[in-house]
This record gives sequence, structure tokens and C-alpha cells, in this order.
Amino acid sequence: MVERQPHIQCRPGDVAPFVLLPGDPGRIHAIAAQLDRWEQIACNREYRTITGTFRGMPVSATSTGIGGPSTAIAVEELIRVGARVLIRVGSAGALQPGIRVGDLLVAVGAVREEGASAMYVPPAYPAVSDHAVLAALLKAAGDLGVTAHAGLVRSHDSFYTDREDELTRFWAGKGVLGSDMETATLLTLARLRGARAASVLNVVVPADGGLEEGINDLVAGKEAARQGETAEIRVALQALHALWTEESG
Amino acid sequence: MVERQPHIQCRPGDVAPFVLLPGDPGRIHAIAAQLDRWEQIACNREYRTITGTFRGMPVSATSTGIGGPSTAIAVEELIRVGARVLIRVGSAGALQPGIRVGDLLVAVGAVREEGASAMYVPPAYPAVSDHAVLAALLKAAGDLGVTAHAGLVRSHDSFYTDREDELTRFWAGKGVLGSDMETATLLTLARLRGARAASVLNVVVPADGGLEEGINDLVAGKEAARQGETAEIRVALQALHALWTEESG
Amino acid sequence: MVERQPHIQCRPGDVAPFVLLPGDPGRIHAIAAQLDRWEQIACNREYRTITGTFRGMPVSATSTGIGGPSTAIAVEELIRVGARVLIRVGSAGALQPGIRVGDLLVAVGAVREEGASAMYVPPAYPAVSDHAVLAALLKAAGDLGVTAHAGLVRSHDSFYTDREDELTRFWAGKGVLGSDMETATLLTLARLRGARAASVLNVVVPADGGLEEGINDLVAGKEAARQGETAEIRVALQALHALWTEESG
Amino acid sequence: MVERQPHIQCRPGDVAPFVLLPGDPGRIHAIAAQLDRWEQIACNREYRTITGTFRGMPVSATSTGIGGPSTAIAVEELIRVGARVLIRVGSAGALQPGIRVGDLLVAVGAVREEGASAMYVPPAYPAVSDHAVLAALLKAAGDLGVTAHAGLVRSHDSFYTDREDELTRFWAGKGVLGSDMETATLLTLARLRGARAASVLNVVVPADGGLEEGINDLVAGKEAARQGETAEIRVALQALHALWTEESG
Amino acid sequence: MVERQPHIQCRPGDVAPFVLLPGDPGRIHAIAAQLDRWEQIACNREYRTITGTFRGMPVSATSTGIGGPSTAIAVEELIRVGARVLIRVGSAGALQPGIRVGDLLVAVGAVREEGASAMYVPPAYPAVSDHAVLAALLKAAGDLGVTAHAGLVRSHDSFYTDREDELTRFWAGKGVLGSDMETATLLTLARLRGARAASVLNVVVPADGGLEEGINDLVAGKEAARQGETAEIRVALQALHALWTEESG
Amino acid sequence: MVERQPHIQCRPGDVAPFVLLPGDPGRIHAIAAQLDRWEQIACNREYRTITGTFRGMPVSATSTGIGGPSTAIAVEELIRVGARVLIRVGSAGALQPGIRVGDLLVAVGAVREEGASAMYVPPAYPAVSDHAVLAALLKAAGDLGVTAHAGLVRSHDSFYTDREDELTRFWAGKGVLGSDMETATLLTLARLRGARAASVLNVVVPADGGLEEGINDLVAGKEAARQGETAEIRVALQALHALWTEESG
Repeated sequence: MVERQPHIQCRPGDVAPFVLLPGDPGRIHAIAAQLDRWEQIACNREYRTITGTFRGMPVSATSTGIGGPSTAIAVEELIRVGARVLIRVGSAGALQPGIRVGDLLVAVGAVREEGASAMYVPPAYPAVSDHAVLAALLKAAGDLGVTAHAGLVRSHDSFYTDREDELTRFWAGKGVLGSDMETATLLTLARLRGARAASVLNVVVPADGGLEEGINDLVAGKEAARQGETAEIRVALQALHALWTEESG
Repeated sequence: MVERQPHIQCRPGDVAPFVLLPGDPGRIHAIAAQLDRWEQIACNREYRTITGTFRGMPVSATSTGIGGPSTAIAVEELIRVGARVLIRVGSAGALQPGIRVGDLLVAVGAVREEGASAMYVPPAYPAVSDHAVLAALLKAAGDLGVTAHAGLVRSHDSFYTDREDELTRFWAGKGVLGSDMETATLLTLARLRGARAASVLNVVVPADGGLEEGINDLVAGKEAARQGETAEIRVALQALHALWTEESG
Repeated sequence: MVERQPHIQCRPGDVAPFVLLPGDPGRIHAIAAQLDRWEQIACNREYRTITGTFRGMPVSATSTGIGGPSTAIAVEELIRVGARVLIRVGSAGALQPGIRVGDLLVAVGAVREEGASAMYVPPAYPAVSDHAVLAALLKAAGDLGVTAHAGLVRSHDSFYTDREDELTRFWAGKGVLGSDMETATLLTLARLRGARAASVLNVVVPADGGLEEGINDLVAGKEAARQGETAEIRVALQALHALWTEESG
Repeated sequence: MVERQPHIQCRPGDVAPFVLLPGDPGRIHAIAAQLDRWEQIACNREYRTITGTFRGMPVSATSTGIGGPSTAIAVEELIRVGARVLIRVGSAGALQPGIRVGDLLVAVGAVREEGASAMYVPPAYPAVSDHAVLAALLKAAGDLGVTAHAGLVRSHDSFYTDREDELTRFWAGKGVLGSDMETATLLTLARLRGARAASVLNVVVPADGGLEEGINDLVAGKEAARQGETAEIRVALQALHALWTEESG
Repeated sequence: MVERQPHIQCRPGDVAPFVLLPGDPGRIHAIAAQLDRWEQIACNREYRTITGTFRGMPVSATSTGIGGPSTAIAVEELIRVGARVLIRVGSAGALQPGIRVGDLLVAVGAVREEGASAMYVPPAYPAVSDHAVLAALLKAAGDLGVTAHAGLVRSHDSFYTDREDELTRFWAGKGVLGSDMETATLLTLARLRGARAASVLNVVVPADGGLEEGINDLVAGKEAARQGETAEIRVALQALHALWTEESG
Repeated sequence: MVERQPHIQCRPGDVAPFVLLPGDPGRIHAIAAQLDRWEQIACNREYRTITGTFRGMPVSATSTGIGGPSTAIAVEELIRVGARVLIRVGSAGALQPGIRVGDLLVAVGAVREEGASAMYVPPAYPAVSDHAVLAALLKAAGDLGVTAHAGLVRSHDSFYTDREDELTRFWAGKGVLGSDMETATLLTLARLRGARAASVLNVVVPADGGLEEGINDLVAGKEAARQGETAEIRVALQALHALWTEESG
């Protein structure tokens, strides 16, 4: 009998080939709400996994926790039990003016300013989304009428450093759209392991706003951020569905 | 009114100056079981916080999740609401023969092979435990008759890389006792922020054992690892109590 | 009067918004052969520039010379005089078995193992193709029935080092499709400057073949490599035409 | 017959397990003055070694010269002939206000901004004092009524660079107590070689004073610095004596 | 039969042991004009090679194209077919006031701020001219009454970055005379391959002038720059002749 | 009144513009033995300074101690009190077969594998001898009939690391002649400060010999090494004399 993966606590067969990856275990409920039906497979530490169907397509969702290291564990273990296409549905702070809370960022690639991907491959290796998954996300956003910005995001390991102003100014000046803490790890590892990945991020802090207010608004359930979360899940599910239909065709 | 911290969801006054930091939110229950009384303060994402008393000493515990990035958030936000002494109670894989599952590692310092501390200060800056907290931990372990190894640990961002053998051999050859994913972040940030920190780790994988079996044993509740977890919590609480008594004296 | 750019010797108006970038000035002729009509704009050092039309679409081609530094100059100066979409039509050595001479590599992104892009931005920043130009290239290849492999390429600054075996094995093991010397510079700079870029490479050396034979075969005009060159130019022109039609629409 | 070590010119048996390490060969006399009895073992280049007893405990002292490289040689060769516990008795410039000339810094750990330790192990490895030797030093300082500051020091390879202001501001801002040129090398190498080490430093330049005046005052024999030197030797000898008594017990 | 080198398209016997290396294929004509007689050996991409005699000495000249990568190819392939002494005759921007357009810089060594030499050996390895070739260049300049400044130059991979002011100020402050894009690659590779190399550079942009004007002046054939080009070729040929005479002696 | 330099304890006027720099204070006597007359100026720590005349030329000698950090102090302070031309007269281990004990290495440049020069300028900056001082050394060696090898040396911060075999093989493979611990610091700092420097090294350990025997032989006064020491001092003095004569001319 095949052993359960040690952290996500799933076995081969538990997880669909198409997987959504929120950071927050709490967001699994918001995903479940958009499925035809679902059941919880496992819940250990920050890893909660459900499997169900969306318009007939089998799909799973696993929370990664915050940061590249816990995301790396989830990605590695999910691929070992059968995941093949992974889309992060996360949140981000914007780095460019004109991007509003609730807008979506669709990552074409990511700045690897986190430590987890560096354990695997030198930083010269690019963190790039799978081009077909990316195209499916952009098409889904267009079809659903959701505002989505395609470009680079920056993934890092802390937003509480003493040089946040400097870091933010630098990367904004390089045209990066926004920051999160998991996309670069996901894109790097999935490609190295032969899986396909992309990332869609709900903007919860505008470029000119303070971090803490933004996140608190999210926690407090402010409307724009909540709508963005709903939108990114819908976009990701519809993109996966299109890929699934094409494959099944 | 002072705002809640965005991730741990605590306000000043919610948290005692003395805090235990397990990685796993599930370990909060094992800590609670050793307190006189306690209540849950908040639970958001991988951050679960309780506050209570141990033999009359006010004490809190907050889970950090896996990895330096989520640990950095917990440490930063806890210090902002009043934490002053932080002891990680985590788990580790051993790098030296002769260290058994359930033995404790007490970190004198940590190799900073994780990305989160590098966001703050160049790697030449040492991740070192507070010497008084360290002494209190070693004394408590001695008084309680627990096997505790004092020395360096290595904190990293993934144990699923393609060069684990090479990394393990290298650091074992440098005398490092074991590996975890959070200690270096905690020690570096706490010192930079003027707080005092140390780390005690329960060995769940021996040096010559495979990783996945080890962790699975823990999850499955194997006895040695479970006893080690109980022991590390007891050692940490007794060490904090000694420091508290001394301060209150 | 606006000054000529110092190296490419072009003025605003001399160059169309859509530009092909071969490395070899000699390949300009092969490009010209596929245009409706064309004229040579300038020829200075390794930079030869022609402007003409392809099925009615205005298009230019400028040779970049070998390597990131001369490519950086071409890209910067072309963008200053009006280039907006740039496609490299170059040659590559394969890193994976099963890729044959004359097959095309379409770069999703590039490993930045060259020095020129590092003058601009840290290596954590990914060298990624513009997703719409990439999609147009893949569609054109499909429509034309050309074998095209989409994936990562590696750009470097020398293939004559004493550690070529080691470098080749390392990057092949990471799934990289092939190596050239210019793609990473182009993709990085174009994105930083707000232009759109992609790269299609004709394989002239197979993964298990020696370098010198491969390149000599090209020089000697061996048939497979020559057909690959013709094919990559055709694919790139057709992709640009599709983007132009869409924009003009 | 066992060969003499090439630089310190000592054989096994010449040196006691407990060794003081001043930088200046001239400070050997100040150490000798506090011993019961002593003899000079060797004097070659900057390495002068004496062996004697302090209240019955066998003890040696070897000067290391200035800087990590000559210190590395002394530490390696001393350990080869039998040294087991090594305490540097050096001088430092303060980086924090409120630390006065003649105060002692007791290094909990050291920033590895010197080149010698980097020859051995990556900078992520922490330069940390042995916790028991550190505790003995702090206890001795307390018992003797000497002002001693416990914390991090920074070891570097030159204080004559063009960016001293920047370096000083940076590390002072990170809470580092003071700077020397040897502590990080000693702590790193001793731990790698299985020996125990610590460092106590006499402050000869205050944080707001100029370097050259401070050092000149020392050379000129100014009183505070001289008293600090006497105090650090006394503290180190008393700490070693306590460890020796404990071991002998 | 020995194969032609794949890029420079030369065979053993085609090239003299003494070789001049201009960057610009167009400068080959200016070199030819100073030879007794010459013939073109090959012309492929940016590599144009002639071989002839100067006052009876056999000599070749090969253009390298712009940048370290194409220079590395030329240097490697030339040495394979018999080159033993290589002198770059290039152009530079001045970094120090008082150096005029048309003055020559004779490189004692070069800052390795380009990527090509880094593929071969860590940056700690110095890019240094062969001392005898350097001495011959300085003597020739003196004998010919040409203003030549001996010192360090800096070789880089782009002068179009967003931090040119910062880079220029930094290296000017370190005493570097001027900047080019090929010298460091040449000096590093030639020494590693056991050949002898040096570099003489014609100043085409003064320290306080703008880049583009300077280069345009060169292209437009401004007099000072043209005279500098003639002078550097004369100096290099005379230096090679002196070395040849000495060897032949 | 001008203050004494804090470490070398010299004032302006105490030291001649031409200075020899042995590492070992004991070698000052061997230098003095070749002077017309001399007096000791200062002796503090590892810094012993004498000033005298050699065939009428005023000359000084200051010992630097072992390693880049103490050498940096000596070089900085000597230049502050008037030194203008500095020649290291040190010892080295050979990295190439065929170099015998007592042969001299004349450094054309040095690999900067030591930490002191890195405090001043990035490693891409080359450590290069002054070409005129180098030429004078080579001429003096020739005139005196001393075997002298001109080429690169490598300066490092420890020869007791666990990877000496690897380091030695690597740099020998790159053609480096031998290793010492001070040359790179001297060459880098002197050039940055506008002084002229070079280095001549007496080989005391052959490439295929063990380190410790070699150095012990030196200490024991073995004949070849002793003759090499005498030779290097003679060569350096004669070179300085030639430069002095030329300047005075």
C-alpha cells in the first residue's frame, strides 16, 4: 500500500490532476462553495485538501500556508500523488499605481526573491508560468469580465524588513506589478518537476496604501477584496475547466 | 484603539511576555495540556494563539506554520504586541549518529540556510540564541532528566531538493546536530528586534533514517517522538518559569 | 533633427515597430528573401538593418552580432527609434535528446547565465517571453507544420570553457531545451523597457553532437540547418503578421 | 619525535589545555604578570607563547597577531598540540553609545565580516561562543565587579576603508556592540575543530571617538584602557579557573 | 585536413603568431593600410581576418565584434590556429578628467565587470596584461610621441543601464582610467590559455562628455578620434615588431 | 605636531619613500644586513620598522605580520607617512612543478582570495603590480643571476582548511605559480591609494612537498630557503635603487 505523503497526508488517488493552491486554509471554503460537490481529504498543519468536481471536472484544492518553504512541501507532495496542473489563488500587494483592490494579477513570471526556490536551482533560472495555463487564465478573466493585469510579480520572504521602502521602490521601478510570498516557489518547482503551473493573485493592498490596513480589511471582509477572492477562484476554475475540456476532447 | 496585528490577529495585552512557538497549530493543544489554565486568543491561517498561566506565570503560545517566512510574520507581530522572550518548540531531523528520536536539540546557534533572515541582514550576522534563555533551557533539561544535545542546528527552506545527500553530508561534516526550517529566522529576527529567543527541537528523524518514515511516525503518534514533544514543552515551560521567577524576584 | 543612434546608425522612422533580430549579419539576406520588398537602412560593425514589408506589414530586421553585450546595444537603440515587438531568429545547440537539427526552439523563458542582463537587474528577475508574442509564434509554427519545442533555453557567454560538460549536464538535468548567447539579454531588456519580445531558435547542434561540427555544417550550408533557418524566419514573420493584423484590426 | 608546529613553534606538551589569546605579543607580559609562575615556550614572528599556572591551574597564552589569517594559524596549531579551551583577550572599538573605554565586551557571537573564516565554511554558519565558557566569563566579570556588555561583535579585515562611516552605521543599527578583527575567526574555527572558545574585548575606542586617538591612547598607556586590559585578563583567567575546577572536580 | 575554426573560419597556418584585435570589422581596413602587404583570410559574421607583413614581420588582424562573448570566441579560435601574442586595438570612454579624445589608454589590467571571463574563472583572478607586451606598447608610444596613459580600464557588458552615473562615479573614484567592453575578456582568456595579450584603447568619449556624441563623432570621422585610431594601430604594430625582432634575434 | 600612526608608530619623516615589506619581523635583520647603515624607528606588535640607506638611497623596511589585515594596516599607515614605492619580500609555496625552493616568484598580479582587499573594492578589480617596479625587479633578478619566475600568485587567508587539495589543484590548473597571504592586499591597496607596489616571493615549499616540512626547513635555516631570502632582498633593493636613480636622474 502506498504511504500517505507526510505533510499533506494524501495518497495517490486522493487528489485530482488539476489543483488550486490558496495560501490560507480558510480560503478552501470559498473554493468549495464554487464546486458541484466536494469532500475534505486531509487537514494537517496548514495543509487542508479537498477534492470535488467543477462542472463535471475533477478538481482538488490544497492550502499551502504562507511562504515558499511550506509551499514547496505542498507542491512536491501533490505532484508525487498525481497533481499535474497547479494554479495558485492567492493575494498580493500592488506595486504600480492604478491597480485597485480586488483587481487580479496574472503572473507571467516571478522575481525569485524568496529562499525556497534557491535551494533547487540558481536564481538565473526563470520562474515562468506555463504558457498554456497562463493563456487559459487570461481568457477566462476576459470571458468573465474580470479586471486582470498580466505581468511579473515578486515573491519574497518578509514584508516587515527595515528596507521595505527601498525594495518596493526598486521593483516598482522595474515594472513589477505586485508582491506575494509563494508564486516564485510554485513556478520554479512545478517546472523542474515537469508539472504545469500558474498564479492568479487578488490585490488586497494598493501601491500607495499601507500593508496592515489592507490585510486587515481583508480579514474584516471588506467588499472589494472579497469580490476579488471570489473572482480569482472563478477565473482559475474556469481556466482549469477549459484545459480539461481540451485534454478530454 | 490599537489595531489587531494583521496575521496573528492579536492586540497588545493579548499575549504574555513569555511565548512558546511551535510550528504546528496542532501542537498548541499539547502545550495547553501543560498549563494551569488557558484560553484561545485568535486563530487565523496557520497562526493559533493561546494565553494562560504555568505555575502562576503568564505565558502564551503561537503556532508559526512551517518555514521562515511565516515564522518571521509571527515573530514580528508578537514582539509588536508585547512578546519579550520567545522559545521555539519544534521538531528536527538529526545530522549526527547517536542522536535518537525523542532526544532534544537545544540550539546554541543556527546555520542561516533559509531565505527569511537574509531579507533582514547579511549572512555574516550570526543566528545565536540568547545566552540566558539557552542556559535556562539546558538547566531545565538537566533538572527534568531529559536527554538534550546543545550545539548548532541548520535551518533551510526545503528538504525535497535533488541534493539532499550532498547538503546533509556537508553540514554533518561541519558538526551541525540537526536540521529544521524555523530556528535561524527566529534567532536572527528576535535579536535584531531586541527580544530574547532560543529553540528546543524534538528529534523526529534519526541521522540514518529516511525523512518520510520519520515524519510519518510522528504523525502516526509513535511513542518516542510523542514523548520528545511532551519533554520539549516541559523543558521550555520550566525554563521560562525560571527566567520569570528571576525577573520577578 | 534627431540624431542617429550611435551603433545601429538608425533614426526614428527608419525602423518599423516589428523587428526581427538575427545574430548573424549574413542572415539578413535570408530574411530579405522572404519580404515583399526591402531596403538596407544602415550597416555599421555587426549591425545591419533593413526595412521592408511582409504581406503589407512594415517590418525591419537588424543583426545583433554574437553575445549579450552587442545584443543589448541593438535592443536599446532599436527601442529608442521606435521598435515595439522584437523576435530573435537565432540558432541554438540542443540540450535534450530527441531534438533534431532544424527543429525550432521557442523560448518561454531563458536562464540568465550571461553578463549583459546582470548589468540591469539582479538574476532573480526572470527572463520571460511576452506571452502574446510567444502564443503567436507557437500558432504560426503549428499552422506552418514546423516542429517547434516550447520551453526554457539557457543563454551564456562562452561555450569554450573548461567545464562545458558540467554546465551542459547541469542544465540538461533541469529540463532546459537548448543554449544560445542572446535570448536572455533580449527578453530581460525588452521587458524592462516596455517592449515585447520573444525568441525562436534553429537547432544547429544536437545534444549528443559536437559543437564544431554542428556550426560548420551550418556554415557549409547543410540542408537541415538551412531549412531550419528558413523555417524560423517564416514562423517569426507570420507571427508578427498575426499580431499586426490584430493590432490594425 | 613529534615535530614542532611550523608557526607557533610548539610541540604537544608545551601548551596547557586552557589558553589565552591576546592579539599583541606585548600583552603576553601583562598576562604573565597575573600568573603564579610561567616560562616562555617559543617566540616566532607574531607568535609568542608562555605556559604557567594560575592558582594552580596550568594555563598558556599565545599572541595571535592582528587579523583573522594569523589568528587562524595560531588556533589550528594550538589545537594540534593540545589546546581545548581558548579565550581571546583583545581590544575593540565600541559601536554603541554608552560603552566607555575600559568596559569589556563579552562576545555572544560575531559577525563574520573577515575573510579567514570564509575559507572554511559559508557565512551562513554562525560564529558563536561556547555557551559554558561564555557563562563563566560573565560570572567572573560579575564576581570581579567589572563592567561587561554581552552581545554581538563584528570582526572585519580593515578599518581604513573608504566606507567606514557606512559600515559603522549599518552594524551599529543592527545592535552590534563593537568591532575587532579576530573574534569571528576564533569562534568559527574552534567550533569546527571541536574546541571551545570565547572572546572578551577591552574597549579602547568609544563609539563617538576617532579610531586613531583611541588606539594611540592605548599605546600611550592611558589609564582606562590599561585598566580594561588588566580587567579582561583577570576575568578570562578566573573564568578558565572555574571551568578547570569544575572539570577537575 | 584540419578543420576550419567554426566562427573565425581560419585554419592553422592562416594566421600569424602576432595578431591585432580591433572590435570593429571596419577597422581592419585601417590596419591593412599600415601593412606592407596583406590578404583577407576569412569574413564570417563580425569576424574579418587579414594576414600580411609589417616591416617584414608576419602579422594578422581579426575583428572581435562588440563585447566579451564574441571576443572570447575570437581569442579561443585564434589561439587554436596558432596566435601567441594578441593586442586589442579598441576604443574607450575616459573616466578621468584630463584625458582627451585621441589619447591612448594602455591597459595594465582590467576590471572584470563583464560576464564572459566569469564563465572561466572566479572574479578574484586578475585580468592583467602580459608585462613584456605592455612594456613594448609603452615604449612604442614613447618612441612615436603618442600620448598614452598606463593604468587600469574597466570592461563591462552595457553602457545603457539605468545606473551609469553610479557605476561611472564608483570606478572613477577607484582611479580607473576608462571603460571598454572587451579588454578584461581578452586578458583573462589569453593568460589562461598560455598566450600573451595586452590592450591599447583610443579615447573616443571624454570623462565629462556624453556617450552618444562621442561615438557619433567617431562614426562621423572626427579628426581627433581618427588620429587616435591611427596612432593606436601604429603603436601596436611597432610594439609587436619589437617583440618579434627580439624573438627572432 | 603630527601624530604617530597608531600601529606602525611612525611619523612623517621617519620612513623613506622606498620601503621593503617582509612579513616576518625577524626578516628585518636580514634586510638590515644588506644596508649601508640603518636605525630602528619603531617596534610595536608585529610591526618593526627600520630606516637606512642602500648605496646612498634612503630606504625603509617594515614587517607586516602574517595575512592581509595586518598588511593593510601597515600599507595604509606607511603611505600616510610618506611611502611611495613598496615591495613585499615574502615567502610562498609553489603551485607548479619545476619551481624549486629558493627560486623567486615575481608577481605580475595576484588572485584576491583574501578578505582584506574585498573590504575596499569588488573582486573584479585586479590586483596588479606596478609595471615599472615589476620591470625593475625582473631586470635586477636577471642582472644578479637569480632564478625568478614572473606570473600570477594567489593570496589567501588560510592554508589549514579542509579543502586545500581542491584549492591547490584548481589554481594550479589555472596556471598560478604559487601562494602567499599578503600580495593581493598590498597590490590592491597601494594602487587604490596612488602608491606603486610589487612583490617578490622566496619559494619555501615546492609544489609536490608538504607545507609543514617546507616551513620548518625555513625556520631551521635550511640552506636553499635562506639563500632565496637573501636573494629576494638583494633583488628588491637593487630594483628600488634603479628606480631611485632614474627618479633622481
